[in-house]
Amino acid sequence: MTKLWKKSGTKTNPDIEKYTAGTDYLFDRVLMPFDIAASRAHAKGLEKAHILSKDELTKILATLDELETSVEAGTVTITPEDEDCHTVIENHLVEKLGDIGKKIHTARSRNDQVATAVRLYMTHHLSIMHAALHALAAKFLDYAQVHQHVPIPGYSHTQQAMLTTVGHYAAAYAESLLDDADFLKAVESLIDKSPLGGAAGFGTSIPIDRDFTAKEMGFGRVQVNSLYVQNSRGKIESLYLEGLAQVMLTLQRFASDVLLFTTQEFDFFDVDESLTTGSSIMPHKKNLDVLELVRGNGSVVIADQLSVKELAKGLTSGYHRDVQLMKKPLFESTTIVAESIEVVGIVLGGLLPKPQHIEKKITDDIFTADIANELVQKEGMPFRDAYKKAADAKAGNVDLKKNIASKKSLGAPGNLGLDILRKRLRHK
Amino acid sequence: MTKLWKKSGTKTNPDIEKYTAGTDYLFDRVLMPFDIAASRAHAKGLEKAHILSKDELTKILATLDELETSVEAGTVTITPEDEDCHTVIENHLVEKLGDIGKKIHTARSRNDQVATAVRLYMTHHLSIMHAALHALAAKFLDYAQVHQHVPIPGYSHTQQAMLTTVGHYAAAYAESLLDDADFLKAVESLIDKSPLGGAAGFGTSIPIDRDFTAKEMGFGRVQVNSLYVQNSRGKIESLYLEGLAQVMLTLQRFASDVLLFTTQEFDFFDVDESLTTGSSIMPHKKNLDVLELVRGNGSVVIADQLSVKELAKGLTSGYHRDVQLMKKPLFESTTIVAESIEVVGIVLGGLLPKPQHIEKKITDDIFTADIANELVQKEGMPFRDAYKKAADAKAGNVDLKKNIASKKSLGAPGNLGLDILRKRLRHK
Amino acid sequence: MTKLWKKSGTKTNPDIEKYTAGTDYLFDRVLMPFDIAASRAHAKGLEKAHILSKDELTKILATLDELETSVEAGTVTITPEDEDCHTVIENHLVEKLGDIGKKIHTARSRNDQVATAVRLYMTHHLSIMHAALHALAAKFLDYAQVHQHVPIPGYSHTQQAMLTTVGHYAAAYAESLLDDADFLKAVESLIDKSPLGGAAGFGTSIPIDRDFTAKEMGFGRVQVNSLYVQNSRGKIESLYLEGLAQVMLTLQRFASDVLLFTTQEFDFFDVDESLTTGSSIMPHKKNLDVLELVRGNGSVVIADQLSVKELAKGLTSGYHRDVQLMKKPLFESTTIVAESIEVVGIVLGGLLPKPQHIEKKITDDIFTADIANELVQKEGMPFRDAYKKAADAKAGNVDLKKNIASKKSLGAPGNLGLDILRKRLRHK
Amino acid sequence: MTKLWKKSGTKTNPDIEKYTAGTDYLFDRVLMPFDIAASRAHAKGLEKAHILSKDELTKILATLDELETSVEAGTVTITPEDEDCHTVIENHLVEKLGDIGKKIHTARSRNDQVATAVRLYMTHHLSIMHAALHALAAKFLDYAQVHQHVPIPGYSHTQQAMLTTVGHYAAAYAESLLDDADFLKAVESLIDKSPLGGAAGFGTSIPIDRDFTAKEMGFGRVQVNSLYVQNSRGKIESLYLEGLAQVMLTLQRFASDVLLFTTQEFDFFDVDESLTTGSSIMPHKKNLDVLELVRGNGSVVIADQLSVKELAKGLTSGYHRDVQLMKKPLFESTTIVAESIEVVGIVLGGLLPKPQHIEKKITDDIFTADIANELVQKEGMPFRDAYKKAADAKAGNVDLKKNIASKKSLGAPGNLGLDILRKRLRHK
Repeated sequence: MTKLWKKSGTKTNPDIEKYTAGTDYLFDRVLMPFDIAASRAHAKGLEKAHILSKDELTKILATLDELETSVEAGTVTITPEDEDCHTVIENHLVEKLGDIGKKIHTARSRNDQVATAVRLYMTHHLSIMHAALHALAAKFLDYAQVHQHVPIPGYSHTQQAMLTTVGHYAAAYAESLLDDADFLKAVESLIDKSPLGGAAGFGTSIPIDRDFTAKEMGFGRVQVNSLYVQNSRGKIESLYLEGLAQVMLTLQRFASDVLLFTTQEFDFFDVDESLTTGSSIMPHKKNLDVLELVRGNGSVVIADQLSVKELAKGLTSGYHRDVQLMKKPLFESTTIVAESIEVVGIVLGGLLPKPQHIEKKITDDIFTADIANELVQKEGMPFRDAYKKAADAKAGNVDLKKNIASKKSLGAPGNLGLDILRKRLRHK
Repeated sequence: MTKLWKKSGTKTNPDIEKYTAGTDYLFDRVLMPFDIAASRAHAKGLEKAHILSKDELTKILATLDELETSVEAGTVTITPEDEDCHTVIENHLVEKLGDIGKKIHTARSRNDQVATAVRLYMTHHLSIMHAALHALAAKFLDYAQVHQHVPIPGYSHTQQAMLTTVGHYAAAYAESLLDDADFLKAVESLIDKSPLGGAAGFGTSIPIDRDFTAKEMGFGRVQVNSLYVQNSRGKIESLYLEGLAQVMLTLQRFASDVLLFTTQEFDFFDVDESLTTGSSIMPHKKNLDVLELVRGNGSVVIADQLSVKELAKGLTSGYHRDVQLMKKPLFESTTIVAESIEVVGIVLGGLLPKPQHIEKKITDDIFTADIANELVQKEGMPFRDAYKKAADAKAGNVDLKKNIASKKSLGAPGNLGLDILRKRLRHK
Repeated sequence: MTKLWKKSGTKTNPDIEKYTAGTDYLFDRVLMPFDIAASRAHAKGLEKAHILSKDELTKILATLDELETSVEAGTVTITPEDEDCHTVIENHLVEKLGDIGKKIHTARSRNDQVATAVRLYMTHHLSIMHAALHALAAKFLDYAQVHQHVPIPGYSHTQQAMLTTVGHYAAAYAESLLDDADFLKAVESLIDKSPLGGAAGFGTSIPIDRDFTAKEMGFGRVQVNSLYVQNSRGKIESLYLEGLAQVMLTLQRFASDVLLFTTQEFDFFDVDESLTTGSSIMPHKKNLDVLELVRGNGSVVIADQLSVKELAKGLTSGYHRDVQLMKKPLFESTTIVAESIEVVGIVLGGLLPKPQHIEKKITDDIFTADIANELVQKEGMPFRDAYKKAADAKAGNVDLKKNIASKKSLGAPGNLGLDILRKRLRHK
Repeated sequence: MTKLWKKSGTKTNPDIEKYTAGTDYLFDRVLMPFDIAASRAHAKGLEKAHILSKDELTKILATLDELETSVEAGTVTITPEDEDCHTVIENHLVEKLGDIGKKIHTARSRNDQVATAVRLYMTHHLSIMHAALHALAAKFLDYAQVHQHVPIPGYSHTQQAMLTTVGHYAAAYAESLLDDADFLKAVESLIDKSPLGGAAGFGTSIPIDRDFTAKEMGFGRVQVNSLYVQNSRGKIESLYLEGLAQVMLTLQRFASDVLLFTTQEFDFFDVDESLTTGSSIMPHKKNLDVLELVRGNGSVVIADQLSVKELAKGLTSGYHRDVQLMKKPLFESTTIVAESIEVVGIVLGGLLPKPQHIEKKITDDIFTADIANELVQKEGMPFRDAYKKAADAKAGNVDLKKNIASKKSLGAPGNLGLDILRKRLRHK
């Protein structure tokens, strides 16, 4: 298709063209719906600025609607020759509407167009992921409630430290997910600003109303300075990816725990066979590959975030083509996080604690801090002395339930504070 | 000094001891005041839980006050043998108060103690940096006002794109800094939760009141789940460092621009000689090394953030000694950001635009988009046709001031929206 | 297709299956030829170990040949259900040869199979890239020769430092590329070891001859310890990617220089229009987007390398599914480097220095170090005194050619040492 | 002290000066001996170039010797005002020798001086680390020999996979260390080139003999192009740090294994108490913090390497002050690796396998692959059928020693190939 910047007579070296296009056209399939939404708002703005007549606007909106339907139906493709979704949209309008279509690019540049489409992509997915995190947190809270009395060793340095419960673990993940959701909300609120109207970075003499188009697209505010619209590329993507990395750090912790607790040596959980995959050479193997990939995908998201910062590093003000390469890490990590949230929910549904197995693994040592605390509470011994005495003491027969019930400080195994966490679910 | 965990008869290999201590004791000098503050709150909590009598509390608080004074006076040191500031504080209390001092560690672990001290360190510095960012944004806004009519080329792809003003650049940095400040505020609000009382990760049977100690330390809420207190190490540090990296991405952009604009070939600014350093071999050199280091320090902060995520990667639930290594990146980056904000303010004060030099460098090409826009506005030509016509047009004599004034879209050079940005300064 | 590990009655959750497959099957299309090559060697080894008869071997080899032809013709696909190329190959053999095909997986595991295929992929591409780097270095050396007398400012701190030549720049890139090629060679030599026969990580009781299969595949040695075959995953990929990152650091430097030198303010080079792309809004723009993408792709490769290290971080001995995620960064970066080397060669061919423009930009200051050196050489003045005197001196009319010719130290503009560099080209 | 570039009348803002000095002066204490060595060679070169007389050279060499002695005695300090070690050396010579001292900086710049000192630092430490790696590999080989018949489960996906031996694990680490040593050797050989004489990046008209000074310092070759001397900063540091990261990836794997194998649930090794540290709240805890820090320090080295690449990213040709910030990651990681190699050796000496505990943990499942292989070898069943049959088979009483002895493929538990690995130790 015709490139927007092609003048007659120029020809770009085909290898150069291939290199600059890269796989960008693939990513633009994802951006297309957001670019159409932004084009709709922009067209309305042009009508308000008297660049388009009411009638022209109606035609453009109808044509964009048709295009959107085709996109949803999967009948629109972007080829490497198209370069990007912006070109496809403009060319489509020109093809269908002639001179009217040629007006759509008034007062905008692909620079603010892509910034806008990417921003819409991010706010859209932040909402979705926020809801998914709450749903997953709710599952962990339910799990915590059900298993709140099932004893399990608590570890520090991967050594048995003090007794705790399966519910305590589950509630820890739940609170982590709730915090992650809060952070995504904060990111959403911080980046909820319309870049549209920044044009190539230096605004325009066309009397467009940026507040109007911002509202049309559902943005809370305008990102004011048109040069900053460009300069914030990389910064905003990094914020977004920090949100995603935070989610993966939570899920990775869960994955690492379960992978440890389901070794034959620990054997704390029954794993539903539907969660496992096998080995090509060892017939007995039932591996939780899915959690190894959750763990691994955490690393991918971290690298994606780094890549965005690296790309921004050292750039001067204004648009640079380097930022095109931010799409891939953005989209890749979004998919990873969405899918990882989902599979962790499935895995949780297939994990059943094996209380009898667990209890056999609990060592006497795990109670030494309790002994010291008892010496403090019952005999009034200063803690440091009690600590020394407890080191040589024997635990004797410990009633696990009682032991757990005695840990009454907020957030301890005997007082999980599930109501406090549940309340955060409700107040989204 | 005596280690808290030393029982009689054990001895650690000195090389192992040296390796595990590392340079941590140096970082703990920084943490000491925050650990004292937390110890104060903890002691009050122990009194409330009837572990300490009123009188014992009074003595402990007085001794902590004295210790704090000594710390401020620089007369307290932490040696490698002391291991950490927690040990120094407890040993100091024991030395001064005997059995009373031995009670301070009731219902707490170094695990939640360090989490608390680090959290206090972060919220403390987030406030300070927030104020510093607003002060720097104010400087850039003043600069924008003063130089809002000084023409300068606007660039995309480091090629002259459209005409803009020095004020437009300055306002872009200001908005970026305001956004960074907002993000730091959001991080502060997200992490403003007391870890104290999480103990080793599994709570305690001592009836401590975590809400009470949280309020005593000025935290807004309690981080509920005691295991999550440990699991959030790395996550919270990464959030904090994302805030710092965002600041550096802004300052790095400024540094890159100025380093480009002060080459002999651009020569857009007079640089006060007090900002420059020289060469050992080329007597004429006056280099803005300071901005090269701002740029470079941006990379250091990015690597520091990565290091924190790397350290957390793959860890199971509960404390692991790996997290000790998060202190260094945290403290290093905090110092970098504080100092970088300061020197950028100084540099800005020594930069004077050279309008006559700048105007000579403005090429005719810079006006082609304006010509196209004129064809649209005056002749009603569809933009894409105007674009093609403008490619061959000559700009003729352009009145720079008028050209700039015509860019009236919000955030464009002719409508910087400084009042909107200033308003954000006031509403902190 | 049938999974290798499927026993009757088990069924994996489809979402789990989708997540674990991921996009891995896409990457395995790339690995297929290498896996076929390894299967060929493995089959020969099985015959030597009397697991396969001569006749069975012949049939397997013929079937593998056919499969390879189909792969080259593009008629073989790997679907998500196939899981990976190993499965496709084994299933193909079983389908064609029945029981004979079922023997191919004797004494091997997908764990060593993928390690072997990936290793072959790497050594294959290291050779190709090595040759491409030498070809590109040769172009830069030719360029250096042609333009060895064209004066251009030399910079430090992006400030004019001392006079140099276009040839001096070109020779710097050439030497950098030669060093990169040497490093790739070193990596190739270090990783040139056969993993085959490591099986699942713990060897096999089947009497296979690992030296024999290593030689069959063209490896120089065997990677001995079968567990280390698995543990080196991530390490070897990181070495390989360090090689690729080194190349990109060289190309990135070139890109950054050219992007600076082709701003309107520097304007040191004529750029062939076939190298440039345009703007959708500013008709005059001719941007070297291709070099911005070379620069940006440098960041992508750095992040890819990091991702591989992150994935390996904290893993215990033996295979983990996390390593599957190393394929993407490996293949992505290989493509980037191959294409970047190519386009940089094309760009170089379209860059012509503009000596008259350049000379106008040379400042007097650039000669102060020369004046100091003259005072040292002609008047015997100690350098530090000469330095101070030169600071106030005026350069007067400097003969640029003579100035350059006077810099006779090895590797200086007047003595580029091109013959030394060319000699490295010949002795590959 | 006097800065080398200070002309009369100029004064740098003290905050700017503080920021540009940073903590660099601290790092330069480390560089001092290398800078003295380079100064010695440079002085000899100046005598050869007739800038210094024989007598002047003698005096300079004697003064450098004295300075070196003082440095070794710890009586020389570098203050922030000194800026760097280069300044201290030159000022010392001027102070002691007057005009003679003022000649030392002829034909060199701090730019090539620091490149040279850093290069010497790297080659020096590469040799030391190479030897340390061989020593550690030897310890692991001895350990492998001693424990080559001690059965232990082999894992994949952290699930018991096949039976192996403690010796097999130890030999895996040994081979990994030998490969790391080879890589350090390769890096040493690649970077073994003298930067001296590159001056500020553009050579000199003083007739210095770069081959001569290279040899004087023990370098194998000259890094030819003087601009490339500067452009390779960041590249060479990254190569070096890749070497260090490789070492840490090996040690991290060992640490992760031991931390898993010494949980109470695995309990495969007796750990000498001298290796452990305790808890402040749980009297029973004996943690292998040292290995957690080895694991964590691996992450620090990875971040250090990234930091160096980040710093280099996007820089144009020639020296930039950003590279000053490469010293810290370089020195920090060097210390980490040197100490980590040492403590891992100590830890290995305190680890004793507990064969009876281990054997109790070996599950029947671990033998399924062996059963399949037996069906292949004894009954001639095709592997894929044997695999399916073995899935339902029971292992019965397995003789562990025999089972291990049967794994005869090279590098398998029954054929560790220790002699091959030992041979690599001898042929350094």
